Amino acid sequence: MENMNASTATAGKVIRCKAAICRNAGKPLVIEEIEVDPPKAYEVRIKILCTSLCHSDVTFWKLDAGPLAVFPRILGHEAVGVVESVGEHVEEVKEGDVAVPVFLPNCGECRDCKSSKTNTCSFGDGIYNFMPRDGTSRFRDMNGEVVAHFLSVSSFSEYTVVDVNHLLKISSDFPVDKACLLSCGVSTGVGAAWNVAKVEEGSTVAIFGLGTVGLAVAEGARLRGASKIIGVDLNSEKSEIAIKFGVTDFINPTSCGEKTVIEVIKELTNGGADYCFECIGLASLMIEAFHCCRVGWGMTVILGVEMHASPMTINTYEIMRGKSVTGSLFGGCKPKTDVPLLAKKYLDKELNLDDFITHEVGFKDINEAFELLLQGKGLRCIIWMD
Amino acid sequence: MENMNASTATAGKVIRCKAAICRNAGKPLVIEEIEVDPPKAYEVRIKILCTSLCHSDVTFWKLDAGPLAVFPRILGHEAVGVVESVGEHVEEVKEGDVAVPVFLPNCGECRDCKSSKTNTCSFGDGIYNFMPRDGTSRFRDMNGEVVAHFLSVSSFSEYTVVDVNHLLKISSDFPVDKACLLSCGVSTGVGAAWNVAKVEEGSTVAIFGLGTVGLAVAEGARLRGASKIIGVDLNSEKSEIAIKFGVTDFINPTSCGEKTVIEVIKELTNGGADYCFECIGLASLMIEAFHCCRVGWGMTVILGVEMHASPMTINTYEIMRGKSVTGSLFGGCKPKTDVPLLAKKYLDKELNLDDFITHEVGFKDINEAFELLLQGKGLRCIIWMD
Ligand SMILES: [Zn+2]
Ligand SMILES: [Zn+2]
Ligand SMILES: [Zn+2]
Ligand SMILES: [Zn+2]
Repeated sequence: MENMNASTATAGKVIRCKAAICRNAGKPLVIEEIEVDPPKAYEVRIKILCTSLCHSDVTFWKLDAGPLAVFPRILGHEAVGVVESVGEHVEEVKEGDVAVPVFLPNCGECRDCKSSKTNTCSFGDGIYNFMPRDGTSRFRDMNGEVVAHFLSVSSFSEYTVVDVNHLLKISSDFPVDKACLLSCGVSTGVGAAWNVAKVEEGSTVAIFGLGTVGLAVAEGARLRGASKIIGVDLNSEKSEIAIKFGVTDFINPTSCGEKTVIEVIKELTNGGADYCFECIGLASLMIEAFHCCRVGWGMTVILGVEMHASPMTINTYEIMRGKSVTGSLFGGCKPKTDVPLLAKKYLDKELNLDDFITHEVGFKDINEAFELLLQGKGLRCIIWMD
Repeated sequence: MENMNASTATAGKVIRCKAAICRNAGKPLVIEEIEVDPPKAYEVRIKILCTSLCHSDVTFWKLDAGPLAVFPRILGHEAVGVVESVGEHVEEVKEGDVAVPVFLPNCGECRDCKSSKTNTCSFGDGIYNFMPRDGTSRFRDMNGEVVAHFLSVSSFSEYTVVDVNHLLKISSDFPVDKACLLSCGVSTGVGAAWNVAKVEEGSTVAIFGLGTVGLAVAEGARLRGASKIIGVDLNSEKSEIAIKFGVTDFINPTSCGEKTVIEVIKELTNGGADYCFECIGLASLMIEAFHCCRVGWGMTVILGVEMHASPMTINTYEIMRGKSVTGSLFGGCKPKTDVPLLAKKYLDKELNLDDFITHEVGFKDINEAFELLLQGKGLRCIIWMD
């Protein structure tokens, strides 16, 4: 009986709290009262401290059809919280621990978790609209209607319930807003440079899309000693902040004159970049990235979730000349082991996390965070729950 | 004056000899007398001992339009020969040396040659219809018409001229027919398993197309200790010879019953093969191979030159789950260093080369070798020049 240790007044009981509910695709979230059930076996109920908005939230917020378009639901998957209570068999965290929920599971038991070649844990159904073990929800609205989860996290709520395979413990003196960043976007970018591309000293990197993920790729490449880090973005305002993450050359595709982006990058890199990263989610841009990488060993890493579910077409002659295409979720990081390593790099003053936080709002103003992201303003907006 | 050492009667002179000329796309080769010029600087004139037919010869033989369709020309790029004379500045081989010409250059000086990450030497134009340094031909027919080269080798001739960057010396006591195999197809397949996929002990491999290249992949995977080597071919007769190269499971797509090849392979490999190899050159098959490899780390290696120049379309969600697509020419082998290593593996009785030779013909019957390949009969047919 693990939760006998949970001595809070709320353990074992339904909690009534506020959540920002997505009731209609693309419409502002509505802050409502909801009921949050206690955690079942292998589940953890978390009081969210702060959360932030990631592009995937916006992608699913816009989605109005298909099996992944579920309403009402609670979005949000980049967050940090405090454990309020735990279900049976949860040994890893206890009440009062600071925990980072992650959309990617890490069961530690499956063939993938045991392999050093991947972070693609096979726990759960890979969709995560509901709790992964029993397929039900822990949320209800005030009319008793079931409210769906999102990516096994649902952090746009004062309280949420997360499977123990979807969270990791972090030191309680680590700054919580920085921990929030490690929950998705920054880990994805830095991890892609380190684990997927394995960027080496002196190599050349081109990054398409300078949002948080793209700039985290730059930061990862900078820490690995890349000699040239080329950032491509339609928004020239990004060029200034990009420098803070090591971007050495900025290209706005609308101001290349007669030349194509491919030509400019090939010139800058003497034939093509060693590593190209697509961080937007457009098949056409993935193809462009592929053309910008050099023959022989040029690697294109896909990080952006394709917005229209379009496939990428690749020229097989180019592939045969030694190019490759690959991708990853969460930057190839295994959440439970790699997030603490990234946190340490921050404490050691190597990894720049501070500059990713450009805005902060209170929970009641969560729709402002959507506005900022849609307008491409800034990087991460921390949404404080209190 | 290097070629003062060349004491043969023919050194420095035009040689008149027989060649099998391709005058029209898809029409039988015609054996004619031609004139072969002496080698210029950095070139080597070779007396071909034996040659064999590779799928790429057939692909270009059929090609009837576009910049790569050049007539008349001398096809052939899998061969072994004896150095007849050398041009200025050639230090690497001398008259009487046994040499293996290779379509892929290996200059030893460029950034690619100096890198351990690739074999994609940047010497030449990558097309090689003519001599790479001066863009001219060393062949003329009896009417004085220029005859084009092919892939910098043109081995369907008693004598040919090859750039020194396109050949390597091999021990004169190595069996010449086996050396011929190492000149393209077998090195491509074994190299793809070793250098590109880096197949490890216990891993699972699926191979689409069991011609010489596909079976050489199997042989490479067998030597690396793959636990399961699945061969897919429409010709069930291949299943018998496939066993000799380590194929453990044979699938004929037309006799899978209700199941698709993808389903069968996923069942055999508990979720998908670690490495899939496409050895035919069909975009549709490349996509199928991609679906047969496992999420997390499954790699699809493209070895077949796409017959219709079609692009391959890949599902980006699958890519983001850790799959990758890559390819190579010549199996990622650097000709000058890796071919001798493969030859040693044969002498050490590790690498099976003998079973790749299923037919032999004399040069005058070269069109029979085309018939055999077109009918999918056997593996390599050695064409003896004498
Ligand atoms: Zn995210
Ligand atoms: Zn797992
Ligand atoms: Zn070949
Ligand atoms: Zn080279």
